[in-house]
Amino acid sequence: MKIGFIGLGIMGKPMAANLVKAGHDLVVSGHSADAAADLAAQGAVIADTPREIADQVDLVLTMLPNSPQVREVALGDGGIIEGARPGLIVVDMSSIAPLAAREIHGALAAREVAMLDAPVSGGEPKAIDGTLSVMVGGDSDIFAQVAPVLDAVAASVVHVGPIGAGNIAKLANQVVVALNIAAVSEALVLARKAGVDPSAVVNAISGGLAGSTVLDAKAPMMLAHNFKPGFRIQLHIKDLVNALDTSHDVGAPLPLTAAVLEMFTALMADGHDGEDHSALVQFYEGMARTSLASS
Amino acid sequence: MKIGFIGLGIMGKPMAANLVKAGHDLVVSGHSADAAADLAAQGAVIADTPREIADQVDLVLTMLPNSPQVREVALGDGGIIEGARPGLIVVDMSSIAPLAAREIHGALAAREVAMLDAPVSGGEPKAIDGTLSVMVGGDSDIFAQVAPVLDAVAASVVHVGPIGAGNIAKLANQVVVALNIAAVSEALVLARKAGVDPSAVVNAISGGLAGSTVLDAKAPMMLAHNFKPGFRIQLHIKDLVNALDTSHDVGAPLPLTAAVLEMFTALMADGHDGEDHSALVQFYEGMARTSLASS
Repeated sequence: MKIGFIGLGIMGKPMAANLVKAGHDLVVSGHSADAAADLAAQGAVIADTPREIADQVDLVLTMLPNSPQVREVALGDGGIIEGARPGLIVVDMSSIAPLAAREIHGALAAREVAMLDAPVSGGEPKAIDGTLSVMVGGDSDIFAQVAPVLDAVAASVVHVGPIGAGNIAKLANQVVVALNIAAVSEALVLARKAGVDPSAVVNAISGGLAGSTVLDAKAPMMLAHNFKPGFRIQLHIKDLVNALDTSHDVGAPLPLTAAVLEMFTALMADGHDGEDHSALVQFYEGMARTSLASS
Repeated sequence: MKIGFIGLGIMGKPMAANLVKAGHDLVVSGHSADAAADLAAQGAVIADTPREIADQVDLVLTMLPNSPQVREVALGDGGIIEGARPGLIVVDMSSIAPLAAREIHGALAAREVAMLDAPVSGGEPKAIDGTLSVMVGGDSDIFAQVAPVLDAVAASVVHVGPIGAGNIAKLANQVVVALNIAAVSEALVLARKAGVDPSAVVNAISGGLAGSTVLDAKAPMMLAHNFKPGFRIQLHIKDLVNALDTSHDVGAPLPLTAAVLEMFTALMADGHDGEDHSALVQFYEGMARTSLASS
């Protein structure tokens, strides 16, 4: 299948490379010149605008920072909608506001262009390995057509519901991850201040009901004060803002998520926004005037 | 080894039965007459008071509701301290305030009686199966003496630090569990209100960084509104009160734990305190005027 790919960032570039490796004819945006040149060396064709890409492919994948960028690429000047023929499929793999996904879907549908929202979880290493988890919202028949393509970048591709459902699932994921990080932070700073080795606490509790992937993956980073991302606080802030915008819109209060967003915002104000989200523990360490890394 | 066992409740009775099965000579308190009679039928001897038990054994295990009961049994009229000879070991397996454990330890130490705090995680089924997790605080040499005895009731026996450390680890465990339950509640009620099947969201996110034992074990209960305990809200309230008393004492603020305690308290006021702690989701359902169990 001839595929367009727009958004050759930290995640998008290795995803595009995996699609080329899987044997697809890829047309990429020249917006990021160096990344486009690297992909051209692997066999991709470069086009200037989303319009020119849409004009020559059957499927466009987008991997962009947030809702405004997806709206601009899809519906703006020189956007996908200008080059689209009826029957084109757009799969937006960015993590954006679910309501924005529904709006863009509606505008494309008016031109007989199908759209799925298909955000991913898993960071750069899984993008490189082609083992991302993809959560997909939209029409079931369209999903069946593109799922084999998404397999080239993913270990898991799950259809969760109608358009927007992919991003709802992604936001639910980010809510759970943020709160599980806060849970480990509260527990370990309590242990440290109460005079107990937090690593011994991790060993004692990880096999029971307190066990989690966050405890396994992030507690060692907190104990070593190794906050190399991983997943940056600034990106988790973006996702929690989208979660709270959505929660306000649909009437589902998220009091603890809102509190963690404020904690992340405090850390951003203090210059920590480029650190891994496990650096949330520093908010707790600051309140308690202690450090997990000290003995 | 001749062992005394005080506290034949839902947890204590099957633990005592497992010690008899392991071949220990057990002396149990007659305080719960029916439970004591059942254990006597299995080979245990009944004594009237903690003092009489302490007078004839090398090791006393206690499994009681909270700090006041442990203090009374250990140090009150007719208590362990009155029958204790130097060299007696007391292992308190109740979940109590860490500072209370340290105080009782100090009072017993003045009479040359050793004490460990060794609270457990895992509910009644694991007490029956002898597969509890035990988190132990206290002297390492004493721990080495009693660990083989504790193996009769546990799948895991971990020494985490000095006296009180067992209960600190238990409180850390309960903080993580409470917040992980809140995390799943916020995420699934958001999904429901945003029009996405929460069970599809669980399937999409459980394999990634959002994965947890709470998500695996409690999300199905939330989706079915099956809140049969499990672990009752009233007991989780007790543990979170102890966690916050400790956090206030040592200066480790736990803002999210405090919020969840208030949510559990609201549910208790509404008559839900005998339900499983996963029933926390009903606080969120109430705020959002929805139910995960409805479609």
